[in-house]
Amino acid sequence: MTDTVSVITAKRDGRRLSDGDIRWLFDAYADDRVADEQMSALLMAIFFQGLDGRELRTWTAAMIDSGERLDLSAVSRPTVDKHSTGGVGDKVSLILAPLVAACGAAVPQLSGRGLGHTGGTLDKLEAIPGWRASLSTAETIDVLRAAGAVICAAGAGLAPADRRLYALRDVTGTVESIPLIASSIMSKKIAEGTSALVLDVKVGTGAFMKDLDRARELARTMVTLGTEHGVRTTALLTRMDVPLGRAVGNAVEVEESVRALRGDGPADLMRVTLALAAEMLGLVGIDADPREAIASGRAFSAYQDMIRAQGGDPDAPLPRAPFTRTVTADRSGWLTGLDALAVGIAAWRLGAGRARKEDPVSAAAGIICLAKPGDRVSEGQPVLELRADDESRFAAALDAVSGAIEIGDGQPAASPDPVIDRVVG
Amino acid sequence: MTDTVSVITAKRDGRRLSDGDIRWLFDAYADDRVADEQMSALLMAIFFQGLDGRELRTWTAAMIDSGERLDLSAVSRPTVDKHSTGGVGDKVSLILAPLVAACGAAVPQLSGRGLGHTGGTLDKLEAIPGWRASLSTAETIDVLRAAGAVICAAGAGLAPADRRLYALRDVTGTVESIPLIASSIMSKKIAEGTSALVLDVKVGTGAFMKDLDRARELARTMVTLGTEHGVRTTALLTRMDVPLGRAVGNAVEVEESVRALRGDGPADLMRVTLALAAEMLGLVGIDADPREAIASGRAFSAYQDMIRAQGGDPDAPLPRAPFTRTVTADRSGWLTGLDALAVGIAAWRLGAGRARKEDPVSAAAGIICLAKPGDRVSEGQPVLELRADDESRFAAALDAVSGAIEIGDGQPAASPDPVIDRVVG
Repeated sequence: MTDTVSVITAKRDGRRLSDGDIRWLFDAYADDRVADEQMSALLMAIFFQGLDGRELRTWTAAMIDSGERLDLSAVSRPTVDKHSTGGVGDKVSLILAPLVAACGAAVPQLSGRGLGHTGGTLDKLEAIPGWRASLSTAETIDVLRAAGAVICAAGAGLAPADRRLYALRDVTGTVESIPLIASSIMSKKIAEGTSALVLDVKVGTGAFMKDLDRARELARTMVTLGTEHGVRTTALLTRMDVPLGRAVGNAVEVEESVRALRGDGPADLMRVTLALAAEMLGLVGIDADPREAIASGRAFSAYQDMIRAQGGDPDAPLPRAPFTRTVTADRSGWLTGLDALAVGIAAWRLGAGRARKEDPVSAAAGIICLAKPGDRVSEGQPVLELRADDESRFAAALDAVSGAIEIGDGQPAASPDPVIDRVVG
Repeated sequence: MTDTVSVITAKRDGRRLSDGDIRWLFDAYADDRVADEQMSALLMAIFFQGLDGRELRTWTAAMIDSGERLDLSAVSRPTVDKHSTGGVGDKVSLILAPLVAACGAAVPQLSGRGLGHTGGTLDKLEAIPGWRASLSTAETIDVLRAAGAVICAAGAGLAPADRRLYALRDVTGTVESIPLIASSIMSKKIAEGTSALVLDVKVGTGAFMKDLDRARELARTMVTLGTEHGVRTTALLTRMDVPLGRAVGNAVEVEESVRALRGDGPADLMRVTLALAAEMLGLVGIDADPREAIASGRAFSAYQDMIRAQGGDPDAPLPRAPFTRTVTADRSGWLTGLDALAVGIAAWRLGAGRARKEDPVSAAAGIICLAKPGDRVSEGQPVLELRADDESRFAAALDAVSGAIEIGDGQPAASPDPVIDRVVG
């Protein structure tokens, strides 16, 4: 006979939970026979004791089985998705989904909302007039068939146990656990029904994982979980010490994504996007050149199709913030650092992000990085442009970026490759 | 600014909580700004990371300050109490309180109910017709002044935060943490207003602490806490591998206590009781001989006064169970072991204990140990007598004691002294 206290104390004392224990736990939690205060104590015990490979596989399976698993068999193209652990200026999905669709795959990207200093893809696309994030399952499949890519909100039916556990982890100090992070991400992505998945695990000051070893462990754990559940999965480890591209916010990131799709994207953004595209196409065996898809206009055309299929007008002007402030270089020299976390927090405070999941976000607020590390700057030259709907937002945002800009005397070495490593199953 | 998640993650990551953090936490928990699922996650983090001396002192002070602290200044004799961590057949309080009162001290013993395989003092005394466990504060002080000893239920006003935390720990696998155990016991004992306290920390199969090192650590932690809060405190570490005395249950333990107070107590029980009495009298500077208090009849007379002052009739016949079963020796030889945990669980299953705090207990159910380790036994000779109100109780109880009796060929060495060590501030 299993009971909740026995499951908690077993994990607390470092013993393995059996498949039966884990299945029982999720059933009982769904029925409220396991209380939130018991689950949070177990989550904290898992923070300390971990879950081994077998436990994690069963834990993730139980989260998937708590809801429905999407059936994408009506989509004739091979399906492949990408998930990022979140970064500052990370608008890669907006470019990558239509780009990979233009190369012949189908990209079913079911996403959550942004929270904290990293923005959310849905929030960014909602800056586009008319665009709808919420689709029914039938609509999701229709858009995917018609446009080759869909980016929409994950429905409440996908891994509902994860939704409840995530809300609990968020208030109980149990977010930062590799098995819990891995099972949360992978249960949703596996339930989404994609046949293949590339993970962009970000590392650095602006990322959730500050440390390369932990990022690598998270990547390996997720790649193993995906593979065990029948989803071909690989991961790239990419740098997140500096904002990706130059725009941080919602409308401003859509604008930068459109420029990228038209062939005018910043080098770091394109390096990461093209590496992920190659990884995705490789997983589904498509031999196509993403650079050519951009050069030919097919990628941008796929983007327009995708936006229109969800009610958006890709040609409509985007909201523009009425107020701006600039932050200037306090001396002449070479820009050697631009702290991603500080810029992310400042954009959040300007209104681009939310503190609680029920908060609205500003479409227009955000930051433009007018210079990036490696650029030469003169004293008084603008480095950051802050944008807001309301002047009262600036003080806290300016405070966040004080100290974010590093200027040195000598020309720095070339910026390191933003793609650090690749993790395969 | 303190917030709950910061407090949880600080402790989780091994950082010290400040006095302000801890005071804030208890205030916020009382106001329901800290939820039970947050507190249970913190308790699990404390299970792993501990509390240092300063944190524990503040944590305990916050629990005391969550309620009232009894004022015993109207009691003219010096006050001294005893607390046991719980054992099988541990009826020491019933003998010790009147014994120490007969020697000139005042014993204010505010107790909780028994739970699990160790009985509760209040449950035992409730076997006496008319005896009331619940007294008002004024009544408690009146009984203490009139009889020199009072054993009653701790009111809801004493350390209410402990009551709530204990209920939470019980269902979240966070009971077995030395700082949490120490603060729970000591907050109630300090709030009770006693000037001195002796702790009986039991070690062995039938005790909460199975291991001498952990028992010693618990004893030291509690002695330090008491001393820091102005209560002169010492502890004895005593053995709990075998039931204490021969009776395990409620009415049967009252009967054995009465025999002990009249000078006819079993050796192991008297050794522990007299050692604790000497410790208590030493703490309040009373130079009296407890053996003489028993021999003269003054101890038994104090017991009668105490029982009568709480409405009990010390001369009334006690309930007797209608059904009995014996467990016999399966071979001839010397009794070398009688497992306290097994006997405790069997008595509990017979009805003497409760599984949940709202369950009733049977006054008459219990076990008499007809032989104890060191006794010579013949095949077929009764070793245990089980008593119950209902024959259906026997099967599970007999199952619990199967294997509890060890019989060897040679005469065992004399039983070790049940008093293992003494811990002072």
